[in-house]
Amino acid sequence: MLELPLETLHGALVDPVLLSMNLLNDIATHHPNAISFAAGRPFEELFQVNQLHEYLDAFVAYLSNDLGQNAAQVRRTLFQYGRTKGVMHHLVAKYLEVDEGIRVDPESIVVTVGAQEAMFLVLRALRTDERDAVLAVMPAYFGLTGAARLLDMPVVPVASGPTGIDLDDLGRQLTATRKRGLRTRALYLVPDFSNPTGVSLDLTTRRRLLDIAAEHELLLIEDDAYGLFHAAPGERTPTLKALDTERVVLHIGSFAKTGLPGARVGFVVADQPVTRQGAVVGPLADQLSLIKSNVTLNTSPVAQAIVGGKLLRNGHSMLAANKREIEIYRRNLQQVLSGLARRFPAGGPVSWNTPGGGFFIVVTVPFPVDDKSLERSAREHGVIWTPMHHFYANLDHSQQLRLSFSLLTPELIDEGLERLAGFIAAESKLP
Amino acid sequence: MLELPLETLHGALVDPVLLSMNLLNDIATHHPNAISFAAGRPFEELFQVNQLHEYLDAFVAYLSNDLGQNAAQVRRTLFQYGRTKGVMHHLVAKYLEVDEGIRVDPESIVVTVGAQEAMFLVLRALRTDERDAVLAVMPAYFGLTGAARLLDMPVVPVASGPTGIDLDDLGRQLTATRKRGLRTRALYLVPDFSNPTGVSLDLTTRRRLLDIAAEHELLLIEDDAYGLFHAAPGERTPTLKALDTERVVLHIGSFAKTGLPGARVGFVVADQPVTRQGAVVGPLADQLSLIKSNVTLNTSPVAQAIVGGKLLRNGHSMLAANKREIEIYRRNLQQVLSGLARRFPAGGPVSWNTPGGGFFIVVTVPFPVDDKSLERSAREHGVIWTPMHHFYANLDHSQQLRLSFSLLTPELIDEGLERLAGFIAAESKLP
Repeated sequence: MLELPLETLHGALVDPVLLSMNLLNDIATHHPNAISFAAGRPFEELFQVNQLHEYLDAFVAYLSNDLGQNAAQVRRTLFQYGRTKGVMHHLVAKYLEVDEGIRVDPESIVVTVGAQEAMFLVLRALRTDERDAVLAVMPAYFGLTGAARLLDMPVVPVASGPTGIDLDDLGRQLTATRKRGLRTRALYLVPDFSNPTGVSLDLTTRRRLLDIAAEHELLLIEDDAYGLFHAAPGERTPTLKALDTERVVLHIGSFAKTGLPGARVGFVVADQPVTRQGAVVGPLADQLSLIKSNVTLNTSPVAQAIVGGKLLRNGHSMLAANKREIEIYRRNLQQVLSGLARRFPAGGPVSWNTPGGGFFIVVTVPFPVDDKSLERSAREHGVIWTPMHHFYANLDHSQQLRLSFSLLTPELIDEGLERLAGFIAAESKLP
Repeated sequence: MLELPLETLHGALVDPVLLSMNLLNDIATHHPNAISFAAGRPFEELFQVNQLHEYLDAFVAYLSNDLGQNAAQVRRTLFQYGRTKGVMHHLVAKYLEVDEGIRVDPESIVVTVGAQEAMFLVLRALRTDERDAVLAVMPAYFGLTGAARLLDMPVVPVASGPTGIDLDDLGRQLTATRKRGLRTRALYLVPDFSNPTGVSLDLTTRRRLLDIAAEHELLLIEDDAYGLFHAAPGERTPTLKALDTERVVLHIGSFAKTGLPGARVGFVVADQPVTRQGAVVGPLADQLSLIKSNVTLNTSPVAQAIVGGKLLRNGHSMLAANKREIEIYRRNLQQVLSGLARRFPAGGPVSWNTPGGGFFIVVTVPFPVDDKSLERSAREHGVIWTPMHHFYANLDHSQQLRLSFSLLTPELIDEGLERLAGFIAAESKLP
């Protein structure tokens, strides 16, 4: 029988970054009764199967009433192969205007199979040969690092620091990368409630970053998965794309957190003009579309219909659609912060940050945290979280862990923190 | 404003193979009233919006009744992030058994965003560096060639010939490729009713191909998009996978033609054991899953639910589900064959093949056929088809064109062939 030695397959398959997700899932699977602060999943108790039918019907009504499609055209839109850039692009553009104050031509949007495909398409477009590298604010979501590894593209870390990005370090890395003979094609970051740190860039930092990007002709890949989940309503900072006058920002959006993960619908706004022999041939979105047609062909029109229907039922606003969820995330954030404060004295060896929203908090502990610590935490204390070293490209040792609070109830948070305190106490006493 | 010269993006973006689909779509868009023999789309007049609701409900009932999921678990399966290898894997395994006589462990199946993603994942796994090449029976579907180009992987053509694959040429190419210092990782082919030729491999050729593959440890990538559409019921030849005793076959399936294109659901059976330091670590499917988690994360569970529901409503058989469609394709094939015979005398300069089923027929004409001929055909004669040179990796000149008959009615076929005869007559007189 034919056997395939692992070393005859792509090198990324033995890369610890790619194995991170599997390893974390395995621990969760083996400890089903542990309380999990691990999964960055949206709150699920408000989901109802009936919503799928309602959203679908809303999209059908839109095709017919708003776009003037007859019954045969409606069926074709839903059932047949569709436009590579998507069939809900007008709704995405409207959503961006309503919720983010971003105005873009719908033709510069590519609807993707989640934000993950958007990252993959962007990196594929930008990586022409082994000299092309992508910068990423570290710690970074491992979906970005994993996509880069699959494309044999080096990821150059830029320090996050307390402001969400260390701009001095960015300058240093740009210089150092150039000296290594690499081209820095883009910088990836999550400006709002970053995964994994929960940190957001303030307005001044955003403006300075945009200036630096324009000066260096550096594309910024803005991953906006959590931007709507602000704990203090009305205080949202504009996205980089909303501030982008020089078209240096590629804006990646996800409907996994605001719509439903099970639709696997995200998008990228790529309005950069692409030129051929000096003449503009169209937005970068058209080139991403060409790549997409050879990766997934289309994003399922049925899945788009469901997310589109959710937008239609909520005045094109995911902020409106998630009113109750946002309250829950806010409540959970407060619950975690106050629960930590109650259990660990200020100025002591255990500390944490105070995000303004999102799904994540980072806790610093007085001992190294690795996958073995997580295994002990799960087995002996019944609580799961994410070791922060998974978010570093080189898997540096770390004394930090990420708590995700989006999926839990106040009772589970309280019990989970009690268990976490037990784990931290036990671990602090280890030789 | 930042501009991106096309030459700073991945080289595939200026590759004529990647541009084929766009070019063909453009011509179709500019001539909306032309009769189209171009699109390889399933017959759409039997689609009903209501089916989407019914399929979804059937899948919900399956989760609850067959898998014993409670209401919260059902919601989680549909709405949340899901298993990377898919949530309908048991249904796919059952379908393969019922319709194809293929028995596989559901764990060796990866449910993908259409067959396109399956091809992409397989090529990504097999391409470790610039020495890895893929063989493909040419002419070949350009989704395969496009995926290879995106991965900077050479495609080595193997002649199709009248039997669907020229096994002598396969031997020659294996030798020649090795001499060039390349590793031939796999051979791609569509054994049943190939796109674009419509040709199928007979049983003897299949068995010989399997022997050669086992001898050379050559993986066979079997693309089975059209296998169920046999014009003579009861006469289906087993797929390569059904005959595969040595696990040399990677079987790629599509539910675009048999389910609905708008779900974008396909799959790959990858049951090859992967070894690490001599020990089996699991099926190749697990490695493809790892890649998938960094390309699209999951295939939409909602989309899987719809295709799964269609299987459930039809006893796990797409053959049963497509009874009426198969009749229509059979009728259309006869209509095209008899229409051609009526218009072009046997032994004359115009000839065509006689496929045993599928969506496609290839017509040979006494003049070169390129995109300019297609443009003239659309503009002056109101009929569209696909120039065969798009299915060759090097876009060789060709005197052939592909007719797709799956989407048409008998009336449109007749009128379309009349127009095609006009085009051929006019073109034959050109200097």
